[in-house]
Formats: sequence, C-alpha cells, structure tokens
Amino acid sequence: MLRPVVWRRGRLFVLDQTLVPAELRYVEITSAADGASAIARLTVRGAPAIGVTAAASLVVEARRLPDSRLSEGLRKAALRLLASRPTAVNLAWSLAEVLAVAAAAGDEPTSIRRAVAQAARRLIRDEDGRSRAIARNGAALVKRGDAILTICNTGPLAAPALGTALGAILYAHAQGKRPRVYACETRPLLQGARLTALELLRAGVDVTLIVDSAAASVVERCQLVMVGADRIARNGDTANKVGTRMLALLARSAGKPFYVAAPSSTFDPAAVRGCDITIEERSPDEVRCFAGRPVAPPRVAVFNPAFDITPGRCIAGFVTERGVLRPPFLRSIRRLMNGGSSHESRRPG
Amino acid sequence: MLRPVVWRRGRLFVLDQTLVPAELRYVEITSAADGASAIARLTVRGAPAIGVTAAASLVVEARRLPDSRLSEGLRKAALRLLASRPTAVNLAWSLAEVLAVAAAAGDEPTSIRRAVAQAARRLIRDEDGRSRAIARNGAALVKRGDAILTICNTGPLAAPALGTALGAILYAHAQGKRPRVYACETRPLLQGARLTALELLRAGVDVTLIVDSAAASVVERCQLVMVGADRIARNGDTANKVGTRMLALLARSAGKPFYVAAPSSTFDPAAVRGCDITIEERSPDEVRCFAGRPVAPPRVAVFNPAFDITPGRCIAGFVTERGVLRPPFLRSIRRLMNGGSSHESRRPG
Repeated sequence: MLRPVVWRRGRLFVLDQTLVPAELRYVEITSAADGASAIARLTVRGAPAIGVTAAASLVVEARRLPDSRLSEGLRKAALRLLASRPTAVNLAWSLAEVLAVAAAAGDEPTSIRRAVAQAARRLIRDEDGRSRAIARNGAALVKRGDAILTICNTGPLAAPALGTALGAILYAHAQGKRPRVYACETRPLLQGARLTALELLRAGVDVTLIVDSAAASVVERCQLVMVGADRIARNGDTANKVGTRMLALLARSAGKPFYVAAPSSTFDPAAVRGCDITIEERSPDEVRCFAGRPVAPPRVAVFNPAFDITPGRCIAGFVTERGVLRPPFLRSIRRLMNGGSSHESRRPG
Repeated sequence: MLRPVVWRRGRLFVLDQTLVPAELRYVEITSAADGASAIARLTVRGAPAIGVTAAASLVVEARRLPDSRLSEGLRKAALRLLASRPTAVNLAWSLAEVLAVAAAAGDEPTSIRRAVAQAARRLIRDEDGRSRAIARNGAALVKRGDAILTICNTGPLAAPALGTALGAILYAHAQGKRPRVYACETRPLLQGARLTALELLRAGVDVTLIVDSAAASVVERCQLVMVGADRIARNGDTANKVGTRMLALLARSAGKPFYVAAPSSTFDPAAVRGCDITIEERSPDEVRCFAGRPVAPPRVAVFNPAFDITPGRCIAGFVTERGVLRPPFLRSIRRLMNGGSSHESRRPG
C-alpha cells in the first residue's frame, strides 16, 4: 500500500501525489518551508495527511533551528505551515498540539526537540488508530454488493493507515462484502482518477471511473454515497472537495443516503455554520491548462474553489472513529465535541 | 464569428473543433465517408451542425458517385452517416429530408445531384433561420444583468447562425442586457472550456469558466440555467451532453428555472419517454487519457456516456423557433409536432 508520509533513517519524505500514477516519487522534506510548500503544491493532500505532514515538518525544523531561536522558530514555522492551506482544520489541530507539547517541555533545547518528535509520533499513531476505527464503523454501513459513489481521494494516500471514506470501502472489501465503487474523477486535479482508481485497483476492489457530472447518471444505481471532509461546522455543514455538494444534492434527489467519513478532529467548534468556513480558491490555471497545455482561452475568467459546502440537512450521518453521528447534528456533534461517543445509532453490518 | 461548416469555391470544409482554441484549422470533406468520420471523431459536433454536415456530405458524395450507382450510393452514404452518432436526432432528419428530395427528382443523374444540392442548401438556410428565432425567443427570457449557467457548446460552432442556448445569450448581449455566463468546462472533451469560453470572449460577453461539479456552488447566484438538446421525447425528457441532468437537478434544488433551447427538429415523435433514447457511450480513453497522456491507471474500468437524460419534470420550458413550450409538455410538444406554435406562453423580454 502506498504511504503518503514516511520516515527513512530519520529523514522525512512525502510521496509526490501530483505525479501519481505516472510516477511514484518520494521527495524529502528538510524544513518547515519545504513542508509548507509540499502542502500548498498538493505534493501531499488529504486533510489527515496534511496534518501529519505539518507535524512531521516541525520535527525536521526543530532539528535545523539553532538552540537560541528554537521556540520562536517553531512558532514561526507553525504559522507558515498553517498558511499553506486554509480549509482543512486538521492542519491547525496538529500544529497546535505539537506547539503545546513543545511549550510544556521547558527551556532545554534537547527536551523541546524530543517533545516535538514524540508529539508528532503520537499524532501519527493516533491518526492511524482513528483511521482504522472510521474504516470499521463505515464498513458497517455497507451491505454485501452495495454500489458506492465517491469523490476525490480518501484512501491511504489521504489519511494514514486506511483513509476515511475509502478506508470504509477497503474494510468492507476485506470483510468479503464485494462493494462496487463509482469514483468521480474529481476535476480539476483528478485525484479520483489518479489516486482513488489506483488504490482500489491495487486492493482488488471493483471500481468504475466517471467524469464528475456523470454522477447524476449513476447515483440511482448506487446504494449510498460516502465522502471525506476537510472541516465540519457545529450544525453539520461540511467543507469538502468541490463536487461534494453536487453529490449530496443528487443523493437527496435520488433518495440515497449520503455519509461523510472523518475523524473527530475535522469538527471545528469555531465554525457554527458552513458560511463560517473559509473556502480556498486556487489558481485559474488549474482549470485553464492541463499539464502545461492550454485547454481554454488564456484570458478567460475562472472560478476555481477547491472545496464547497454541503448542507448538514443533506447528510445522513458522520462516520467518525467514535461511531456514526446521526441528525440532529447540533446535538450529536456537540456530544462528540464534549468527548462522548455515538455508537447508539450504528447500523449493524 | 467562427463557422463550423463552410463551402469554399464549391468545396466543403469543417472546422476541426477538437483543436480549438489552440488551432483554427479547417479540414476538407470530400466524401460521405469523410463526413461520417468527421462527425464520429467530433471534428464537427452540436446537434444542428452535424445535421448540416451530414446533408452537405451527401452533396459531395453525389458528385463523386458514378451515374450508374448514384441513387443506391446516396442511400448507402446516408446509412453510413446515420451510424456516425446515435443520439442527436437532427442527423436522421437531415438525411431523410435530402434522400426524400433526391428520390422525388426522378432518374436523371443531373437532376438528382441538383436536387440534393438544393435540399442541403435549403436545410442550412432553414437551420439558420430557426437558430435566429430560437436566439430571439430565448433572449426574451433573460433580464438585464442575469447570471446564466450553461454546459457544453451551443453557440455558432454547434448550430449555424447563432446557436441555441448560447445564441439566446449572444442575442440578449446584443440587446444590451449584459448577461453574465457561468460556463461548465464539460468533461471529458471540454467543449465548454475550449469552444463556449472562446465564443463568448470573442463576443465580449462576461464569462466565467468552472469545473462541472462547481455548478453546485454557483447555481444559487444564477437567475436561470439554459442548455441545448440532442433529442427530446414526447413527454419532455431530454437527451443532452452528460452533466445536463446534474444541472437540472441542481437548478430544481435551488429553485431556479431550467430551460432547454433547441429547434423543433430535435423533438422525436418516436421517443415517448427518455428511456426510448439511445445514449452513446464513447471510448474509456476520453476519460483515462488527456491529449494522449494517461491520467488514470490504464486498466481502470470507465463508464463514459456522452449524454444523459434530464426528466421533463425538471424543465421550465423549451425554447424553440416557434416560441417557448411550457408544461404540461405532453400537450405542448404534441401541438408543436402537429405544426402549431406556442407563442402564448412567452415571457416578455
């Protein structure tokens, strides 16, 4: 299985996902600036994976910073990493966690560096555990032979261990349920075509690739829709890859359940509603060009949001590591944020 | 204005739309086989434009056929052209019309050739007139400053003169209504990015290009959605470019009117409902590759329908050359097919 972030002999590498599937090339991250650039350029992407990359980038940054500027340098590096992408909340959580541990480690540079490394290691291990629990809980929603519609990439390349929505599908496949997947190619950067199709083929899952707009033609023949998330507001409004809102509205029209799979760290108590979430707009050239070749008039205006907001009312449930949250979400999300679990509403597998 | 089909000194040329906007190259059609291949390869596309191309191809075929095989050869050529694309009904109409005129011209080869040429010329002139009337009727639905969402290309490159849905927008622009357009790029072949963006920019219309799935993010800020059609059933179910069904369902969710602009030749009395319309599936490599470069694992299964079916119940009206048809469509379409017009329900501009 491909892994997005790896340590090799104490050095940090990320898989350059912009080149997959044509090439499987790992690039080294030697500083926080490298890490921020890898996140901004989508060398590494997927909300949990960028959280992990940011934390690991602080570890390599701590090593290169002189003792005299260690604490201040780590804070600056965290700000730089935080600015690399605005929408996924996991990035902010990971950085805050590592910084808090560093601050609590005292003034001794060696202690600070050790604390940062331990915090990052624990974060990766925790993310791994959450991913497995999400996969198990999501798989319980899948019946034998179900056809599932999804978008973007939410597999092991997006989140350590198994992923989120794709993790649930891989888990259901491992249980022998033989799920069938319609994967939206996910314009403009084709994460569905490049990454999801590859991960599912490698795992032996029955996958059919479609252009995003063909979702309206296949949703009727699916039993459910399952996607990931980058940030979830207190009322259940969810920011995820552009196209997710389309899938949710199509699912509602077709009377199919629409699930969002994400770790509890994706829920943002500071966002009351979807309109409180900043949606990243990316370069017009992602749409105007393909592999450096123009596919539209060079001067044409482009609206290129990386994400969109799915209204909570279109969502049947949130698959988290602590169970499946059901509506009303104001209540079930508040309970999750207060540390409770929501196993009461899981459907038996 | 770019024209999809042109005669130059008695020779027939079509603009190779697969190369636009990178290159504006006309290729000569010297036989019906050339014409069929140009239609199948999408060198020329757009339901009215392929109807015109098929008729013109019969003219050049009639010239090259020996006198002894003229009638039989024309029938064979028509069958070949008919098979080039299955969904657009205009193709069948155009061929049937030219063949009928040829059959009525007697046995004299010169008369037959002259009749075929006249029939094709009249067909182009009629298509031209219908296109202008559709544009005028469609523009009456557009208010000053309206934002309009559309997909694929329905401008002068798709239909002689002004086009259909884009014709209405160009007409409204010429009236000084300053419409703003969100153009879906239209995967997999990007007719929206390549052709619609170009035509609107050249005409000075305010156009913003989006990936198809971002339609869910912009439909709320639009006043209406307007698209073309390849075949319309008696109950109003409409076959058009894949993604049209998505737009219609999104428009319904957002409470925005969804219009289909098409000449009356697009209504197929043989199709009672949408399920009676054959949907062309095209090569998986249209999705798996881009400009010959792979963007997905080479072995991945692909579902690549060129069209989809929009339920008649999602459509607010059909903009035809004889006015705007309103629901109930079983009645208004029957009246259109019986030769009546439907001006009673046009909204004042």
